[in-house]
Amino acid sequence: MHNNIVLQAPAVASQRSTREWQQADAEHFLHPFTDFAGLAKKGSRIITKADNIYLWDSDGHKILDAMSGLWCVNVGYGQASLVDAATRQMKELPFYNAFFQTSTPPAIELAELLSKVTPPQFKHVFFTGSGSEGNDTVVRMVRRYWDILGQPERQVIISRHNGYHGSTMAGASLGGMSGMHAQGGLPIPNITHIDQPYWWENGAGMSRDEFGKVAASWLEERILSIGPEKVAAFIGEPVQGAGGVIVPPATYWPEIQRICDKYGILLVSDEVICGFGRTGQWFGCETMGTKPDLMTFAKGVTSGYIPLGGVMVGERMAKVLIEQGGEFNHGFTYSGHPVACAVALANIRLIQQQKLVEHVHDDVGPYLAQQFASLNDHPLVGETQTCGLMGAVLLVKDKAKHQAFPSDLEVGMVCRGHCFGNGLIMRAVGDRMIIAPPLVITRAQIDEMMVLIRRCLDLTLADAQKNGWL
Amino acid sequence: MHNNIVLQAPAVASQRSTREWQQADAEHFLHPFTDFAGLAKKGSRIITKADNIYLWDSDGHKILDAMSGLWCVNVGYGQASLVDAATRQMKELPFYNAFFQTSTPPAIELAELLSKVTPPQFKHVFFTGSGSEGNDTVVRMVRRYWDILGQPERQVIISRHNGYHGSTMAGASLGGMSGMHAQGGLPIPNITHIDQPYWWENGAGMSRDEFGKVAASWLEERILSIGPEKVAAFIGEPVQGAGGVIVPPATYWPEIQRICDKYGILLVSDEVICGFGRTGQWFGCETMGTKPDLMTFAKGVTSGYIPLGGVMVGERMAKVLIEQGGEFNHGFTYSGHPVACAVALANIRLIQQQKLVEHVHDDVGPYLAQQFASLNDHPLVGETQTCGLMGAVLLVKDKAKHQAFPSDLEVGMVCRGHCFGNGLIMRAVGDRMIIAPPLVITRAQIDEMMVLIRRCLDLTLADAQKNGWL
Repeated sequence: MHNNIVLQAPAVASQRSTREWQQADAEHFLHPFTDFAGLAKKGSRIITKADNIYLWDSDGHKILDAMSGLWCVNVGYGQASLVDAATRQMKELPFYNAFFQTSTPPAIELAELLSKVTPPQFKHVFFTGSGSEGNDTVVRMVRRYWDILGQPERQVIISRHNGYHGSTMAGASLGGMSGMHAQGGLPIPNITHIDQPYWWENGAGMSRDEFGKVAASWLEERILSIGPEKVAAFIGEPVQGAGGVIVPPATYWPEIQRICDKYGILLVSDEVICGFGRTGQWFGCETMGTKPDLMTFAKGVTSGYIPLGGVMVGERMAKVLIEQGGEFNHGFTYSGHPVACAVALANIRLIQQQKLVEHVHDDVGPYLAQQFASLNDHPLVGETQTCGLMGAVLLVKDKAKHQAFPSDLEVGMVCRGHCFGNGLIMRAVGDRMIIAPPLVITRAQIDEMMVLIRRCLDLTLADAQKNGWL
Repeated sequence: MHNNIVLQAPAVASQRSTREWQQADAEHFLHPFTDFAGLAKKGSRIITKADNIYLWDSDGHKILDAMSGLWCVNVGYGQASLVDAATRQMKELPFYNAFFQTSTPPAIELAELLSKVTPPQFKHVFFTGSGSEGNDTVVRMVRRYWDILGQPERQVIISRHNGYHGSTMAGASLGGMSGMHAQGGLPIPNITHIDQPYWWENGAGMSRDEFGKVAASWLEERILSIGPEKVAAFIGEPVQGAGGVIVPPATYWPEIQRICDKYGILLVSDEVICGFGRTGQWFGCETMGTKPDLMTFAKGVTSGYIPLGGVMVGERMAKVLIEQGGEFNHGFTYSGHPVACAVALANIRLIQQQKLVEHVHDDVGPYLAQQFASLNDHPLVGETQTCGLMGAVLLVKDKAKHQAFPSDLEVGMVCRGHCFGNGLIMRAVGDRMIIAPPLVITRAQIDEMMVLIRRCLDLTLADAQKNGWL
């Protein structure tokens, strides 16, 4: 462990004390998904530098970042080739748009490379600035597709409770987060949600494989209740990320694919988290065995170094949009931003050169699975799941009785607090503790992470015992 | 003029011929706001490098970029301090999020600096990745504000026909672009549009000042027809940009402010185009004399070098959101992206150091106004308007009779074609030819631009005469 190693602070951070940073932060910066007053009272932790899988804060603490920033820093921090690509491109051409019948070499090269690393049905890309804008684009694009084909009544998009598809009005409506739907007039019309394939919560009395088919059948039920002729698309994350790294049973996605095919409904794979090696294949749909019509991507495409997102458009849709669509009245100033695209090119080439997908698939993914499975001996652990380099540990009151903690105890947040204090970034979603470390992580670093995770589980157990929660 | 100067091509562009770039572009890149098949047939122009106010294409042609990329490259291309800021920050900390009770120095410093350069009511910022995400955030935030205050029935946002507020579902719904509303199930509920303050089209028989008050009165009429207790906010661009650089009469915005105040309705200024010096003040609302509750920004905040957007939140709203709001369930992975924020800091400091706002206000803005006014002697020119460094030239069939060309002639596109061929980027919105050059432009460069504009007007006039359009 390196919690107390003090490295030289970066120039910008050394200008102020932690307390001064916190004060300015509280006075001016409204953080995303935050209780502003609560955070102002507590004070933010100021992250000042990073390298490989580690962060340092303004007090010099070293932290193992088991969340890759926010599911995005797939190649880890400090990769010089990404910095060089940005610097070179910014000097040459820091911006130009693709609206005015113009294009730029990095956008073209990236579009070409994406058509190579994605599944074979994808030859075209629509660039956005983020995953939210990507999923927002999906809504407009699938409806436009059916309009062109003379089926304008196909408006409804089916999604899932506890899915996450971004935070624009349309993205948050596609998502099934009740807290988001409670604020700001959501969801927008013609989006409906089915239950998630979360065996521990919804699969009582069934085997995981049986449950996977049952959970998929909810899609068919919903299609039939709406009327198949009104359904445009189904969207889902291969593995629900922000929902708590919920890995569906192996039977789930093939059945979803069969149902979509049966009713001619478009299948959209939200690969914002699962894409670019996270699941041990280039894309999560490959791990799950589906052939989507659209794929949303962001995060891992640049490892988060520069914002970029987009939608891969399968040939079934691209042919119609190109040949029959005329102008598609949609797009963003930064669609195909040359600096973002140059960084994405460097990032994807690095993933290829360092064979990071193979590293996850053959080496650290299976190793993580084995290590996480070993946590099942811990009294608090109800289940563990991994898929490639995503993992979840569910904290429960009584594993034999399949009994959760009362949600008002916020046991996940208690555990997250111990992670915070012990130099580990691990996220709590309810009582599911989740990780998604950089793909460059080594076995030795996984060992290091597991020591921290066990320590934090033990500290949480001690709290639970002390407070009589068990 | 430098149309035929061939500079050394950048490394990436030299890898392929123009034709090869165009082919790969057509095969893989779905451009924003584009007829894909039409562009594929014609072939994109490949922009490979840029400096100051000039671009170069892959055939070595030099082009005067009178649109600042897409209204964004306010400090011009090739500014080393922005590149250095990005490079330094990417090496130190290329990404970290602001979700996990964490913050980063560049985001804090930028929040602080924004509170200094914006009008005094703004002390807080909510960061997004683009102007679209900013306006999308506005919808959620104004509704949330009224919810907290116990007025959840205040859901309706009033906007304007031919306004532009981005391309997410909510942004495009706020916008009043009929072509966008025709695709993808728009607009979303509880957004309504009044007519725009465009004197030439809507002000027949009135002086501009009379018309400004009439156009503002449409807001009051709409508020009364909906019921003031149901109206959350009014949103508008100080000067409509994508709508055609429509500069409202001086009487318009003060009257809008008075009406919003009268009914307690929030006023939102979309400063994505007008912000950061474009109108000759730091923000367009200052030029127009309003005191908005929210301001959306993007583009000029980084001069487009790295994507960034956000919403400035006035103290009236910030106090409620912070003290009574609890968690605001909204935000983006790249909210407060450290590299984007570092570049924004360098960009704003450059605007300050080079006194670019003063340069526009005192020098090149008035000079452009004078030069544009001189175009009124041209037979095709129905009106010219400028505001700071934005300008429009309306092409008409008969200025004495106040008669437009039939829209199917697409005279604006004919003129744009001549601009394309003569080394000038000027945009056509219908028959309004518009510009918004980098703020660093000099008087000598304005002279150079005006020679090109006159040449393109003359070529368009020759076409009109030849084809019997007059």
